[in-house]
Amino acid sequence: MIIREGSYVLLFHTPRKKWLVKVAVAKKMHTHLGVIDLSNVIGMEYGSVIQSTEGKTIYLIQPTNYDFIMKSERKTQIIYPKDLGFIVARTGLENGSKVLEIGTGSGALTTFMASIVKPNGHIYTFDINPDFMAVAKRNLQKAGVIEFVTPSQYDPHLGIGIKNADVAIVDLGDPWTVIPQVYESLKNSGSFVAICPTFNQLEKTAIELRKDSFVDVESVEIIIRTLEAREGMTRPSSRMIAHTTYLIFGRKVSN
Amino acid sequence: MIIREGSYVLLFHTPRKKWLVKVAVAKKMHTHLGVIDLSNVIGMEYGSVIQSTEGKTIYLIQPTNYDFIMKSERKTQIIYPKDLGFIVARTGLENGSKVLEIGTGSGALTTFMASIVKPNGHIYTFDINPDFMAVAKRNLQKAGVIEFVTPSQYDPHLGIGIKNADVAIVDLGDPWTVIPQVYESLKNSGSFVAICPTFNQLEKTAIELRKDSFVDVESVEIIIRTLEAREGMTRPSSRMIAHTTYLIFGRKVSN
Amino acid sequence: MIIREGSYVLLFHTPRKKWLVKVAVAKKMHTHLGVIDLSNVIGMEYGSVIQSTEGKTIYLIQPTNYDFIMKSERKTQIIYPKDLGFIVARTGLENGSKVLEIGTGSGALTTFMASIVKPNGHIYTFDINPDFMAVAKRNLQKAGVIEFVTPSQYDPHLGIGIKNADVAIVDLGDPWTVIPQVYESLKNSGSFVAICPTFNQLEKTAIELRKDSFVDVESVEIIIRTLEAREGMTRPSSRMIAHTTYLIFGRKVSN
Amino acid sequence: MIIREGSYVLLFHTPRKKWLVKVAVAKKMHTHLGVIDLSNVIGMEYGSVIQSTEGKTIYLIQPTNYDFIMKSERKTQIIYPKDLGFIVARTGLENGSKVLEIGTGSGALTTFMASIVKPNGHIYTFDINPDFMAVAKRNLQKAGVIEFVTPSQYDPHLGIGIKNADVAIVDLGDPWTVIPQVYESLKNSGSFVAICPTFNQLEKTAIELRKDSFVDVESVEIIIRTLEAREGMTRPSSRMIAHTTYLIFGRKVSN
Repeated sequence: MIIREGSYVLLFHTPRKKWLVKVAVAKKMHTHLGVIDLSNVIGMEYGSVIQSTEGKTIYLIQPTNYDFIMKSERKTQIIYPKDLGFIVARTGLENGSKVLEIGTGSGALTTFMASIVKPNGHIYTFDINPDFMAVAKRNLQKAGVIEFVTPSQYDPHLGIGIKNADVAIVDLGDPWTVIPQVYESLKNSGSFVAICPTFNQLEKTAIELRKDSFVDVESVEIIIRTLEAREGMTRPSSRMIAHTTYLIFGRKVSN
Repeated sequence: MIIREGSYVLLFHTPRKKWLVKVAVAKKMHTHLGVIDLSNVIGMEYGSVIQSTEGKTIYLIQPTNYDFIMKSERKTQIIYPKDLGFIVARTGLENGSKVLEIGTGSGALTTFMASIVKPNGHIYTFDINPDFMAVAKRNLQKAGVIEFVTPSQYDPHLGIGIKNADVAIVDLGDPWTVIPQVYESLKNSGSFVAICPTFNQLEKTAIELRKDSFVDVESVEIIIRTLEAREGMTRPSSRMIAHTTYLIFGRKVSN
Repeated sequence: MIIREGSYVLLFHTPRKKWLVKVAVAKKMHTHLGVIDLSNVIGMEYGSVIQSTEGKTIYLIQPTNYDFIMKSERKTQIIYPKDLGFIVARTGLENGSKVLEIGTGSGALTTFMASIVKPNGHIYTFDINPDFMAVAKRNLQKAGVIEFVTPSQYDPHLGIGIKNADVAIVDLGDPWTVIPQVYESLKNSGSFVAICPTFNQLEKTAIELRKDSFVDVESVEIIIRTLEAREGMTRPSSRMIAHTTYLIFGRKVSN
Repeated sequence: MIIREGSYVLLFHTPRKKWLVKVAVAKKMHTHLGVIDLSNVIGMEYGSVIQSTEGKTIYLIQPTNYDFIMKSERKTQIIYPKDLGFIVARTGLENGSKVLEIGTGSGALTTFMASIVKPNGHIYTFDINPDFMAVAKRNLQKAGVIEFVTPSQYDPHLGIGIKNADVAIVDLGDPWTVIPQVYESLKNSGSFVAICPTFNQLEKTAIELRKDSFVDVESVEIIIRTLEAREGMTRPSSRMIAHTTYLIFGRKVSN
């Protein structure tokens, strides 16, 4: 695939030295590896190799959702790929799903889910914070999925006009407060998940879910550990992200 | 949504007592919770509640891919949802992707990926073992995604006639042996992932990937820990699955 | 070292098939590996090998505290070696230490600490439960350390007549309730540790410790993961103990 | 206990701002919390509180082995308390033990073990590196345990003149190369442990141990996770040390 003006490219040197840029004529990236002239990459194929002015190797990678999410503009703590992936696998979210999201934040989860449910599924996402909403919209646009998302700056405690959602995700500081509203919006046997960084949030949410006709309530933590795989000296990395969030799942049944 | 003859239902009592069944007239499930008469559930809505002959509560849950995978017929070690989800999140697999899978096994990963890439994406999956292939086809049929999958009983070491795959997944005992073939099948900057249960497989695969013009090579382990969230006594569960597999990722660049 | 009548021997076949026995004339162990005649081992050296009547290899291992603890008689959840070891390393407990233990339970931690502080140090241990106390005394006797321990069946909420303890360990369901009493018993800058299986216990204990002139308050979880190290197929074990307890530490300062 | 000239004090402000110092007349510590005048602390009791010239609270903590180890002078990667503690708990090392250590490094493990085996036990420790040996001796002196240790700058591959050790610890890059020598030095049914940061070292050591009449061979990793325990918002810490080393254990039997 050919890189054109306006294309996004991941300029990749090493896992820690990489930049996600929009290609434009006469645009130059100034990095500590030297200058990278983006005019030159127009017309090249993704996967090609160029050199910075200091002779450093730069790979022109076609960005995936993973790259858009990891390099997204952030106003909030994003949800990490380890958690994004498990949310999808555990809730059964799939192509065509109708999804309710409460707490858009910077739109990382929204972007990821939209890339899966499109073109016939849809994400309805709510956040009361106008700054977050503005950032999220920019990130959704950049990732090319905004047409599959309806973002609303609105307080979902006031009631949500969505019915028959397949999956509902809550990413608020007090997720237990919107459980009744979410119950109304979900289809029967639809999946619920809440993002709970602390054990206190997890405990309160679990208690409310069990009161409110949700079954199969399961609380988990997903942990990712990287390894250094090198000939004769393979070992886990010395440091890691220890905790991002707990996740709690449930499914709506008749009450 | 209404349960009809031929529908699949997850009969849910507790997380450890649940059954995935196909509804049919005059079919009865004999369990240690009593008999469940499936004739009665025809015409009921998913999410409803029934009782076994011993008065136990059974919820009629509409199965998701998660349920189909966890309750699938198995000839091989399946790939767990924690790993399935991260494979999708990390490779950027999304709706419309063209995917190459080497090592179909029981088809759990195939099912999951097909539910995401459909209707315009496609999974090309290879396994030399005819027994595995037969089981995988049955599981794909049951999950309703077989039309988005081309399964081949074939040894991919002999060369793969697929070009421009967005993502390639290798689940073999010796994943490093097919890296040259996979390289040919991937699009430039396409994503590679191998399933490596042991350190030794991980190390060998990492060495070969680096030789073969893959960059952004990253080795990870995804760990899931469940918690008991109960009022005043919340804690991690006492036992857990400690290890299923390592995952190694890379992206193809020009050589 | 020679095995005599009355000696303890660990009869070791595999990590999962091992028995801790007291050797006696005419005593026979009946196992599913056949009968082991203990008369025969009298006069043999530790480290020798015998065979059961079914021809299975049995190693005669001299038991360590680890074996006495793992094979101890139990009325309560024992504290595991991973936690025992860290308690000693983190509190600075050493030869000669004066130790206060509240909640003797089955005496596993008591046994371990006594083996370190003896002959000049001492453990003062309290439990209100007479059944636990009886079991603990038998376990301490068996491990040969009872002379370095003063066990008391007594409620330490009523006040503890110990002063200047170097280290205090609390293993109660409500460890925060004895913090003032423990404060009085510790020497200045002495170490405190509580065993807290749940988050809720941990949080309450942390709050009380900070109120009560303890500094360097640190909460940790120690996790042990076993690995299968075998030529060409080394990997973490598939299952593990996921959680036993949290530990919370502090040091007394003047108030 | 009173702080005197020549005493060691841990000047504690927070877990990340603490200094281990030897008290002397006219000695001043210059820190970014202001100056701390050590003349003033002579005659005060451990556990007391002073203020820096900038009005910051400093606690005068009596250092434990934990503090000496964590604040020790280092030429090498030290062994962490989580691993130190488990080595002691798993090998049965206790008061009075005779211990062989190959690979003294900076002496952290030596210090810890000496504090437990003293006054009747002893540590025989070997390192071929004269720089490491010099650092280790200074650390042992500082911690006050050097009289219970015999350090030798010597290559143990040439044969070790120690017999009947209760426990042997190997901390070399190639621990499998000294297994025959260690076997000769251990008592029958004595405990062996090797420090193996990589899986390759672990695998090779396991293979050699099984060849060389060691049984109960067990490979483990000890992981420590800290938690933030705060009212209403308790959670695991965001970052952690992911890996220090694997540990492999065995017990000598007759060959």
